[in-house]
Amino acid sequence: MKEKIVIALGRSALGDDFPKQQAGVAVSARAIADLIEARYHVIITHSNGPQVGMIHTAMTELNHNHPDLYSPAPMSVCTALSQGYIGYDLQNALRTELLNRGIFKTVVTLITQVRVDPFDPAFSHPVKTLGRYMSEEDAQAEEAKGNYVIKEEQGYQRIYCSPKPLEIYEIDAIRTLEEAGQVVIACGGGGIPVLEQGTRLKGASAVIEKDFTAARLADQLDADVLLLLTSGRKLAIGYGTPQETYVDELSLQEAQKYLDEGRLSAATTQPKLEAAVNFVAAAPGRRAIISCLDEALDAVNGKAGTVIHP
Amino acid sequence: MKEKIVIALGRSALGDDFPKQQAGVAVSARAIADLIEARYHVIITHSNGPQVGMIHTAMTELNHNHPDLYSPAPMSVCTALSQGYIGYDLQNALRTELLNRGIFKTVVTLITQVRVDPFDPAFSHPVKTLGRYMSEEDAQAEEAKGNYVIKEEQGYQRIYCSPKPLEIYEIDAIRTLEEAGQVVIACGGGGIPVLEQGTRLKGASAVIEKDFTAARLADQLDADVLLLLTSGRKLAIGYGTPQETYVDELSLQEAQKYLDEGRLSAATTQPKLEAAVNFVAAAPGRRAIISCLDEALDAVNGKAGTVIHP
Repeated sequence: MKEKIVIALGRSALGDDFPKQQAGVAVSARAIADLIEARYHVIITHSNGPQVGMIHTAMTELNHNHPDLYSPAPMSVCTALSQGYIGYDLQNALRTELLNRGIFKTVVTLITQVRVDPFDPAFSHPVKTLGRYMSEEDAQAEEAKGNYVIKEEQGYQRIYCSPKPLEIYEIDAIRTLEEAGQVVIACGGGGIPVLEQGTRLKGASAVIEKDFTAARLADQLDADVLLLLTSGRKLAIGYGTPQETYVDELSLQEAQKYLDEGRLSAATTQPKLEAAVNFVAAAPGRRAIISCLDEALDAVNGKAGTVIHP
Repeated sequence: MKEKIVIALGRSALGDDFPKQQAGVAVSARAIADLIEARYHVIITHSNGPQVGMIHTAMTELNHNHPDLYSPAPMSVCTALSQGYIGYDLQNALRTELLNRGIFKTVVTLITQVRVDPFDPAFSHPVKTLGRYMSEEDAQAEEAKGNYVIKEEQGYQRIYCSPKPLEIYEIDAIRTLEEAGQVVIACGGGGIPVLEQGTRLKGASAVIEKDFTAARLADQLDADVLLLLTSGRKLAIGYGTPQETYVDELSLQEAQKYLDEGRLSAATTQPKLEAAVNFVAAAPGRRAIISCLDEALDAVNGKAGTVIHP
């Protein structure tokens, strides 16, 4: 029985617009197909930064240009749209790549919701800027509605909170399909963040960090490997400083030390290593790998990337 | 063993904008939950007319307003977005309605592609207007690109072809989840229409009639019942004429006669009855039902709606 791998595709794995996304998913599909061809069981998740930004901009401008016809699109709805958009291209590219290798497997995208805690302290510390640039007047109107706004060089922009993912609601569907030997794309963009109100789920105005959701997904599926694919070949310590070094492996203890020391670039590496530690620490026999698309199979086979082990 | 039912939700089952859709899916969820509570196995599909129109308008205007940043969104991509958008709200509403009745079932939306024939004669007869209204100049630019445009009262509008659905690519995933007792939403908006190019699927600039896709879905799943839910309580013959009558049941032969005589309103009733006939005629023991949301369970139990039987 080969290992079960949750693959998280980073921003560099997907293009920024319609034609570039077609090209991006083709490259990602090759890396994923390498793992499937080597008989690993894979489950795929992905980021959605530029894509949800595009969708958010489109829907917000639609509302501004036709306020009588269209109401504003909640952020949770924009994430749902982005799961459909990216999933469609990704499942298609992977289907083609597998067929080209003589592998017949159904590949399918699930619309996936993830529970977040309304009392998560992250809700008072917005971190993810997203969507169109606004005038000062529009920014004030957003703030009056209770939304966070930040001033950037190009203008004002909405900034969203990023609470931790607690639970994936559609996990049974993901598991059923995975056990049937099919390939699932789920929790795109970190999943649609929702708050529980009794039996109801209410979309949260937030964006979950996709690496944390990937770790949660891998944990709920009890995967063997969490594979975080990014543009860098290995995890960099002291990135951009004269002390910059790339590491092949880290024990949980070493990884925790780097996290505590804050020697990682917070925007990208910090959440990856934190997600890796969370996943590996939660049960025995697990490992997390940070690698790039081109070396995905080698990394799983211990010949590339950075591995975080117990 | 209770019967397997493919439910097709019509336009009236979903609202036209964000808040109305939340209200619409809650009503639809009650009708679907009635059937699940009565132990029927259901698979759900739905239309996407107003929703994909909104998305198409938003993405097209985004491209027009920022041609340097965003390329035009193909129609197939807009359908994928609409599957994510509607599926998210619908799976949520149904989850809540089931939980309120003490029923624990995973509800999930699949991004679904449907093969169409590039030589389908429908590709030379556009029928479905969709998206924003354009100036004459923009309309001419669309025609120069080979796209169909029609002049309406409010301005020019794109008009799309509606080829027949031949095959649902993700059918194995739908079947696996249905057999595991989960509730699947699939083939939204008639499915994403795609053309086969070797091992590759290319999005078609088209919109599949959702009733035909529902019949294809029911056929591929070998369902017992195809349940087409609309705003009318029964199938109307001679709708809007002094001879208007509502029918309780039709044999295949009678249904075919009505279709041949063209006594149905082409825009809505004709494809429903045609879809019903296709499904019922393809294998023994099947029936199709045309009914409204409020009477869905009664209709399946033979107490409401119009049934088409062998």
